[in-house]
Amino acid sequence: MPSQKTFFATPQDAEAAFYEAIERADLDALMTVWCDEEEVVYVAPGGPRISGYANVRESWRAVFEGGARLHFRIHTLSALVNPFTAIHSVVEKITVEGQDDILTPIVATNIFLKGALGWRLVLHHASPSPPESTPVTQILH
Amino acid sequence: MPSQKTFFATPQDAEAAFYEAIERADLDALMTVWCDEEEVVYVAPGGPRISGYANVRESWRAVFEGGARLHFRIHTLSALVNPFTAIHSVVEKITVEGQDDILTPIVATNIFLKGALGWRLVLHHASPSPPESTPVTQILH
Repeated sequence: MPSQKTFFATPQDAEAAFYEAIERADLDALMTVWCDEEEVVYVAPGGPRISGYANVRESWRAVFEGGARLHFRIHTLSALVNPFTAIHSVVEKITVEGQDDILTPIVATNIFLKGALGWRLVLHHASPSPPESTPVTQILH
Repeated sequence: MPSQKTFFATPQDAEAAFYEAIERADLDALMTVWCDEEEVVYVAPGGPRISGYANVRESWRAVFEGGARLHFRIHTLSALVNPFTAIHSVVEKITVEGQDDILTPIVATNIFLKGALGWRLVLHHASPSPPESTPVTQILH
């Protein structure tokens, strides 16, 4: 069983543990990835802003209680890292176990802070990225 | 006229300049706030992920060309700052000039980096925060 003592040596380790814990619907493992602080912020796709470790935990508990098992493919589109902070911008392609459809892609900002116990997630902001929108890059090129 | 040499001494200065430039529909002033780099990321409410300084500029140019004049009230809900990075989590309450309604509140993550020319915006991720959702904090207390 994971514990608060789990050491994530890199932001990538913490991010992988985050998505694996969601896939397994493992609340304890998931909450090990988050900073144990009031400053944590979680915005689910289409959802309100939730802050504070206890509130984030309660939100995920309710999600897992719903019973859907999710599978993620993560595309890291950019990463900015300095000694104390890592900012990842990713696209999540999510499928639900037992269903063929891929859900609307999700664009997510994941921010990790480095502390005595390695890297921990401090902010996860996710929102649907509408497929009907033509990326500006495609307009320009 | 603002220029790339504008110095923002604090993340708050850069953030204030960001929202003021949007209110004035001043593209040059707005783009002065952004890091002049490929790593910049912009997610508008309900929109796709846009990256790169030129693409972000083109996206805002199109917004301003639409002609709507917006007024912002910004509520800073949390701020994490270390020597090189500032992470602000804010709620934007937006009104459109000539209309009485307040739009759906927007939750935004604003990330600023400190460089030789002070603080600059490197990521703005915004998404609608549905009023019908009951915050988890209200469920718990």
